[in-house]
Amino acid sequence: MPSYIAPVKDIQYVLHDVLDVSSAQTAGYSDLEKEFTEAILETAGQLATDLLAPLNTIGDTEGCIFKDGKITTPKGFKDAFEQMKEGGWPGLDLPEQYGGQELPSLIGTAVGEIFSSANQAFTMYQGLTHGAASAILAHGSDEQKDKYLPKMTSCEWTGTMNLTESHCGTDLGLMRTKAVPQEDGSYKITGEKIFISAGDHDMSENVIHLVLAKIPGGPDGIKGVSLFIVPKILVKEDGSLGENNNVSVGSIEEKMGIHGNSTCVMVYEESEGYLLGEMHKGMRAMFTMMNEARLGVAMQGLAQAEAAYQNAVIYAKDRLQGRDVTGIKNPDGPADPLIVHPDIRRNLMDQKSFIEGARAFMLWGAQLLDQAHRDKDDAADGLISLLTPVLKGFLTDKGYEATVNAQQVYGGHGYIEEWGMSQFTRDARIAMIYEGANGVQALDLVGRKLAQDGGKHVMAFFEMVKTFCKDNDSEEMAEFITPLKSASKDLQSSAMFFMQNGMKNPNAALAGSYDFMHLFGYVCLGFMWAKMAKTSSKAALESDDPEFHNNKLITARYFMARQLPMTTTLLKRIESGADPVMSLSAEAF
Amino acid sequence: MPSYIAPVKDIQYVLHDVLDVSSAQTAGYSDLEKEFTEAILETAGQLATDLLAPLNTIGDTEGCIFKDGKITTPKGFKDAFEQMKEGGWPGLDLPEQYGGQELPSLIGTAVGEIFSSANQAFTMYQGLTHGAASAILAHGSDEQKDKYLPKMTSCEWTGTMNLTESHCGTDLGLMRTKAVPQEDGSYKITGEKIFISAGDHDMSENVIHLVLAKIPGGPDGIKGVSLFIVPKILVKEDGSLGENNNVSVGSIEEKMGIHGNSTCVMVYEESEGYLLGEMHKGMRAMFTMMNEARLGVAMQGLAQAEAAYQNAVIYAKDRLQGRDVTGIKNPDGPADPLIVHPDIRRNLMDQKSFIEGARAFMLWGAQLLDQAHRDKDDAADGLISLLTPVLKGFLTDKGYEATVNAQQVYGGHGYIEEWGMSQFTRDARIAMIYEGANGVQALDLVGRKLAQDGGKHVMAFFEMVKTFCKDNDSEEMAEFITPLKSASKDLQSSAMFFMQNGMKNPNAALAGSYDFMHLFGYVCLGFMWAKMAKTSSKAALESDDPEFHNNKLITARYFMARQLPMTTTLLKRIESGADPVMSLSAEAF
Repeated sequence: MPSYIAPVKDIQYVLHDVLDVSSAQTAGYSDLEKEFTEAILETAGQLATDLLAPLNTIGDTEGCIFKDGKITTPKGFKDAFEQMKEGGWPGLDLPEQYGGQELPSLIGTAVGEIFSSANQAFTMYQGLTHGAASAILAHGSDEQKDKYLPKMTSCEWTGTMNLTESHCGTDLGLMRTKAVPQEDGSYKITGEKIFISAGDHDMSENVIHLVLAKIPGGPDGIKGVSLFIVPKILVKEDGSLGENNNVSVGSIEEKMGIHGNSTCVMVYEESEGYLLGEMHKGMRAMFTMMNEARLGVAMQGLAQAEAAYQNAVIYAKDRLQGRDVTGIKNPDGPADPLIVHPDIRRNLMDQKSFIEGARAFMLWGAQLLDQAHRDKDDAADGLISLLTPVLKGFLTDKGYEATVNAQQVYGGHGYIEEWGMSQFTRDARIAMIYEGANGVQALDLVGRKLAQDGGKHVMAFFEMVKTFCKDNDSEEMAEFITPLKSASKDLQSSAMFFMQNGMKNPNAALAGSYDFMHLFGYVCLGFMWAKMAKTSSKAALESDDPEFHNNKLITARYFMARQLPMTTTLLKRIESGADPVMSLSAEAF
Repeated sequence: MPSYIAPVKDIQYVLHDVLDVSSAQTAGYSDLEKEFTEAILETAGQLATDLLAPLNTIGDTEGCIFKDGKITTPKGFKDAFEQMKEGGWPGLDLPEQYGGQELPSLIGTAVGEIFSSANQAFTMYQGLTHGAASAILAHGSDEQKDKYLPKMTSCEWTGTMNLTESHCGTDLGLMRTKAVPQEDGSYKITGEKIFISAGDHDMSENVIHLVLAKIPGGPDGIKGVSLFIVPKILVKEDGSLGENNNVSVGSIEEKMGIHGNSTCVMVYEESEGYLLGEMHKGMRAMFTMMNEARLGVAMQGLAQAEAAYQNAVIYAKDRLQGRDVTGIKNPDGPADPLIVHPDIRRNLMDQKSFIEGARAFMLWGAQLLDQAHRDKDDAADGLISLLTPVLKGFLTDKGYEATVNAQQVYGGHGYIEEWGMSQFTRDARIAMIYEGANGVQALDLVGRKLAQDGGKHVMAFFEMVKTFCKDNDSEEMAEFITPLKSASKDLQSSAMFFMQNGMKNPNAALAGSYDFMHLFGYVCLGFMWAKMAKTSSKAALESDDPEFHNNKLITARYFMARQLPMTTTLLKRIESGADPVMSLSAEAF
């Protein structure tokens, strides 16, 4: 069975050495002293190792059972959920007003990585609740907030998001679920939603569904969609639970992975719902949740990669197979450990250099989010809006690739379920799909975010990288700055290509959108690695743990030498434009 | 449920338009007229569509059941196997002397792709039998051949290969299974083997295991390994079945995919075995089987990609979602089909350009194999020996990637087992692992094959590409020749880098071995696409189906513009040498 130990030291490194968060001006950041964050991360890590990780395989094997209209979560999930609630983890970064601890998103993200690594399917129950609570927080009336948020902050009630119907996923304008206005101001919701993660289960007394639906007579398409709060059990004036709300589970989906999470078909039959936010502006409200969810999914990509990597490393050190071609390393054993072999190292270094770069990117993203929300910093808001599809698309694609690589280290054993490596890839696979499939992220990036506010956010990003390169233009840093400059130039050339060609023919830009998302991701990770190299170059001389920092430098060099060159190929793909992609007639596929 | 239709036209195109097989001098090739191969492929295609494909999902869902020492294959498998036997398919390219039809491997490979696409887990039963029969054919005594081959050619008895033990996979020198010589010349085999595909089942009356074991007192390590024929049920002098041979199933493995194939732990307890080939030279004999098996696995990579692609195309044409940004394409519908969207096309073109290039590569490889075996052509033998790890490693990695891409086209539905797209990826995943994990293929390529016979085979390959480029140096062909030249130059630079640096430090070559295997694969596919472009440029003017050939040209252009540039990045990775890969201490992972 796989194991997991939270990478507290690496997270602390990003928080304090790289981002220096306790010196940052953002509200609440001054509390984030090293000892404080370490205590939180260590406690979360302990729970992850002892409580959640052991339930991961069980969750996969048992799955959720749907019988007589009720869903039973895998053995042990319910008790574990109680412990998470008791520890106050679900409300970690939710407002104190509703019972949360109001810590920055930065901490929520760091802790989220740990819990997701240990058990993604389990952690999703509170992740979805968090997203639904955020949407109510942003768009709900005071009455709605008072009614739902305290119970959701504690996860006594969990939350869901209901968008997809069987005939429409990305194109939500086609949806059929109806919301008929009632005299008392409420609505009767009728329709069927699919792929509802944590849709129903036995771990909370109520489920608060956020449901997109159309009010008859409203505008066609996406402009006629509104968002509703639809509780599984109606909540009375005094906050106690009343009658069932005609919300039922149609079935649970048989999925490739995340078996421990109940992915439901939800059926609403004249269920009572309450408008959340403005009428016909449901997509806007839903996007509060979606954007948060996208960052959460990006984090899952990183988290599964980390968990898989840890186990691959253990196996590579334990498993004796073959001899080091440059000289025997384990003379007393029948063979050397796998880790002596260059190709095993190549594989592990690909994973490691991705994971540590991705973690820095992810936590920087969370910091931007805090600056946007807590400081009302428009520049940070614009930048994280730009980077959200990059984080989601790139981290989940590369995170999945990392789990596949980790599985490969095990040879045949990687294919056998007993070893748990298959589960990491099967669980990681969903992150490329949900909350907007990665192709949709690429479309969002190139079709919307790039030109947002006159392209000012992408220009700010380029400027930021340029300034960093200029400020660190030393001989010592050249091995990191030179490749970063080159990769960043490739990214700028791509953006330029889109500008020059996309106006005449949008397909010239859209054909390269996926490559651009990846190119952007590589540059972001290159930027993070250059920052870490700067930090560790200095710290290697000063710190009492020079080894740690030297290893960061080695990993940074690996990323620069063997990952970042991917930008060259991606630029070529992009610059080939629309023709190669669009020339074939649809019938000829 | 997914469907499958054999791509007969595309296979025929490679056989006749590109390779012009019926004009080739190889023994038996003159029979391969268009009408003849078409009849075979169409018949195989019908069986694949009607019989095997419908059993694919059942195989995945039911899996094999191990109960009371016996294995039951999924419902329908046994009847289907009978039909395959009746049709004579298992013996298609085995010698007439033993009841086969003695067609070239080329035809076996083409038909194998079709059956594997329809149902990989099922087709493996006959695939392994074929491999075991080939090993007996190459290394067995006349008596052994007469005893086993007729029944194996017909698949009345199936075969297996037993290499792996729980503590050793790649490093077979560590094996513990023992073969103790008996006075009558036979051996008593004792040991436990794992991951034995088609190890036992209910579809044949006997299973002929080929088992690697050590004869006590022999040389240490891999040099003391011998190969044995160990029947499940002993075969009497007259060919009838005798007593059980103490061969039992320890358990069946729970795997990520290929559930329809019984992957067994096999237990031998003083089971009677007969030496196959020379004592202590078991690896040589096993490699006859392994090399054939590696080509079979390469073909599986292609086959799963084709099956997944076909379904992705159907979905992309059917599913209405969003509108074409350049203008509505389906005004009468609520939305346009997915296939109008550039990123969906990018995804499908990546798959299509890989699959068609891979098929040409695969069939060219099979032709080389025929030349090597039937014409005793040493140059062809050397070349296919060099290309085998490239075919196996590259086609299975890229084939898997193609299935993941195909799954992605389905959005959330791709993650739901009901749609069948998950099975393609789960089944395709094993091909990267078995018959030598792809890292081992890369090691074989760079550590062994590249320098084989003084490097003469790789030089011959370079020369072949160079000559083709020179012979087709026309303005019309420039769009294909120029990128091929550039990619081929990258491959040569890589080989040069290995030569210059690998002598001093083998790790400088081994660190880049995986990248080299991929780089070689891209160049081979580029070569194939250039050949196809040549063929179709001419045919587009002459043929009565110019559309077909124009589509080949469009796909060739896609490959050149958007796939082949990958060689640039791979060369950079390779030229970064050993340091980035080897610098981190093992403890620091």
